[in-house]
Amino acid sequence: MIADFVVSPKTEAEVIEILKVCYEHNVPVTTRGAGTGNYGQAMPLAGGCVMHMDKMAAVKQIAPGRVVVEPGCLLKDLDAATKADSGQEIRMFSSTWATATIGGFIAGGSGGVGSCTWGSLRDLGNIIRLRVVTMEAEPRVLEFRGEELARVSHAYGTNGIITEIEIPLAPAYDWVDLFLTTEDFMDAARFAEELGNEDGILIKLATVFEAPIAKDYFQRVAPHVDSGDNLIGLMVAPQSMEGFLTFLDRRPEAKLIYRSDASDWDRTPGLVFEYGWNHTTLRALKFDPSITYLQVRYGFPQHLELIEKMRTSLSPEVLQHLEVLRENGKVMFAGLSLVKFTTEERLDEIVKMHEDAGAMIFNPHRYTLEEGGRQSVDDQQLAFKREADPKGLLNPGKMIAWDDPDWKYAEMYAYPKMQAAE
Amino acid sequence: MIADFVVSPKTEAEVIEILKVCYEHNVPVTTRGAGTGNYGQAMPLAGGCVMHMDKMAAVKQIAPGRVVVEPGCLLKDLDAATKADSGQEIRMFSSTWATATIGGFIAGGSGGVGSCTWGSLRDLGNIIRLRVVTMEAEPRVLEFRGEELARVSHAYGTNGIITEIEIPLAPAYDWVDLFLTTEDFMDAARFAEELGNEDGILIKLATVFEAPIAKDYFQRVAPHVDSGDNLIGLMVAPQSMEGFLTFLDRRPEAKLIYRSDASDWDRTPGLVFEYGWNHTTLRALKFDPSITYLQVRYGFPQHLELIEKMRTSLSPEVLQHLEVLRENGKVMFAGLSLVKFTTEERLDEIVKMHEDAGAMIFNPHRYTLEEGGRQSVDDQQLAFKREADPKGLLNPGKMIAWDDPDWKYAEMYAYPKMQAAE
Repeated sequence: MIADFVVSPKTEAEVIEILKVCYEHNVPVTTRGAGTGNYGQAMPLAGGCVMHMDKMAAVKQIAPGRVVVEPGCLLKDLDAATKADSGQEIRMFSSTWATATIGGFIAGGSGGVGSCTWGSLRDLGNIIRLRVVTMEAEPRVLEFRGEELARVSHAYGTNGIITEIEIPLAPAYDWVDLFLTTEDFMDAARFAEELGNEDGILIKLATVFEAPIAKDYFQRVAPHVDSGDNLIGLMVAPQSMEGFLTFLDRRPEAKLIYRSDASDWDRTPGLVFEYGWNHTTLRALKFDPSITYLQVRYGFPQHLELIEKMRTSLSPEVLQHLEVLRENGKVMFAGLSLVKFTTEERLDEIVKMHEDAGAMIFNPHRYTLEEGGRQSVDDQQLAFKREADPKGLLNPGKMIAWDDPDWKYAEMYAYPKMQAAE
Repeated sequence: MIADFVVSPKTEAEVIEILKVCYEHNVPVTTRGAGTGNYGQAMPLAGGCVMHMDKMAAVKQIAPGRVVVEPGCLLKDLDAATKADSGQEIRMFSSTWATATIGGFIAGGSGGVGSCTWGSLRDLGNIIRLRVVTMEAEPRVLEFRGEELARVSHAYGTNGIITEIEIPLAPAYDWVDLFLTTEDFMDAARFAEELGNEDGILIKLATVFEAPIAKDYFQRVAPHVDSGDNLIGLMVAPQSMEGFLTFLDRRPEAKLIYRSDASDWDRTPGLVFEYGWNHTTLRALKFDPSITYLQVRYGFPQHLELIEKMRTSLSPEVLQHLEVLRENGKVMFAGLSLVKFTTEERLDEIVKMHEDAGAMIFNPHRYTLEEGGRQSVDDQQLAFKREADPKGLLNPGKMIAWDDPDWKYAEMYAYPKMQAAE
């Protein structure tokens, strides 16, 4: 699974040129942002060309509430540019903000920090426009808005190369980072849920970590907690701190142990969001390589009940890590549960327990679009791939529906043309 | 019900001086903003002094996400100042934005345009700080935050005079005003509700008017609608228009008839929010003086069901006017129903039908704090009045609990010391 060569186009014209040449010579093209995606979205399964987008990183236009940017721009750099220009920032980002690109986030991500307020990338309004180059004898440049966005967003670059992105912006505030602890796990989950439902308190993150995640895996937090402490991580807008502290006073079960605007910790814990979303697993892996994780959807209104049920059945083999998320206007939870891996069979059993209870699983151990998602073919993406990548050269092996329309999902898909690293 | 004299203090020191003199001579003091409140909040029932706050209108400090302002500042002027300074605006305002003051809104209002996103004024985080002068021999200046805010916000100036206000700000956008029509009323209600639940589409207003409100009472809209058209009024952020139009395309039952950014109407309808909230009734009254209204809470999750039930039972005697509102993180509706008034008995019957069905009524035909609200004593406000206004001189007759602790709410409260206009 290594590429034969790597290219770094500087302009859309160069992208077109590369695709044209590769099309002519039947060379697969796998596009990469910063390579932080953790589902194998950008592994070049059939070798060929890896196209790095790092040279196409310009912030092209900033206006009130929106930005136009090239795909290779780091999330961090994009936020710095919009904040400096007009006190704005992107609505949501992955916890890999410091190293990931906006193009990679849109082509391979689903949501993250900010989704407690703005929902997911797939929700209407969270992407305004995508400009895309097709993989044909004469590559076309297309502009997608509205329903058409679903053709290429979260498609892993399988049906076109994104060369320009227009997304909405939110006001940038000096978010206050907070850590709190509770003795009871469900108290922590309820705290995060109720805070997410406070319409007048603006937050950007509300994360819950079951004990002993904080003590065992969060090195800079560990000195301030016990093994029995459940941890809540928050980002609160400074103008909402008064309201938040009133909310907190009403809940003596939660104890504030850290606030970034008035910290007495010897060593700063860094950014709180770098403990949440995918970073929780990354931190845990440093201490215990046998850890893996699941992505769970605890949907409204059963979310708290489902969480309690899964925890009762599976803790401490599965430790709860919850992220407040809005879906269809309701606060619910995404779970990125930490699993102590034993066998494939046991992992499948754990997955089945969730599904049987009604908690949908998005399997992060699969590299295809369908298996990582809702296990169904996206007809719109498939139809567009027929048009935009007729030879099937873009990021091959990631869209099962293209390779094997009759695939039944009973077992993990293995791309038959996969090339071993030599 | 007229005052004996009117004063207009220019500074907090003058407020203190006025209160001190009035306290000494046992003169009642009723504070007024612009006098746009429609529950009689600021009627000087016992005569005495009316204190106009129009000379205390300074915008004192603007920071990212917050503003400090004097109470007499018009909502319109406050928005103009914060927008010019840093592209910000207040989170919510009454439909009397052009003429009402921020102090009057906070002392006498509950929410309005913007509440579809930010909830109500009473929600944590929507007021940061209030500075208040008490009515004592030596008036004290107090600063309230957190739980203490409830002592004086929405207290009609009965237990202290607000001299400074700190509230959060939201980004100011060039909101796009929209009107849409549907043939079926419940289609319009569902449209507004579902739009309110779109996490990625930023709105500031979603209002529904049952037919024939638009045809009969909205003069500039009438040429563009039929008597059978239900009307939806919206404010959508410009960066959310792409997402909104996609949302609209999925709902062919709704027809877009006006957008302020691309209008082909001969005469502009003006600001859409000036059709909503209390302005709907004001407009209807110009055409039919027998119209009155009710304030209804259609709470989640029964909101749509309750609305349909009330409409089936009462239309067209009661015409539905709905405002999307967030409460505890959920989209629900405030109803400001237009009622064709016949008798007091029939009005009471209509109120009872709502209450029996489970739709709470806030009676706008009462001038007291308790009757207009949840018909119960606010112990915190009462306790604070004992301390801050021991002689009971501030806006007398508006807090029943002060005048008559044994009042049972069976009939409308009539302040016994009320003075007739001479």
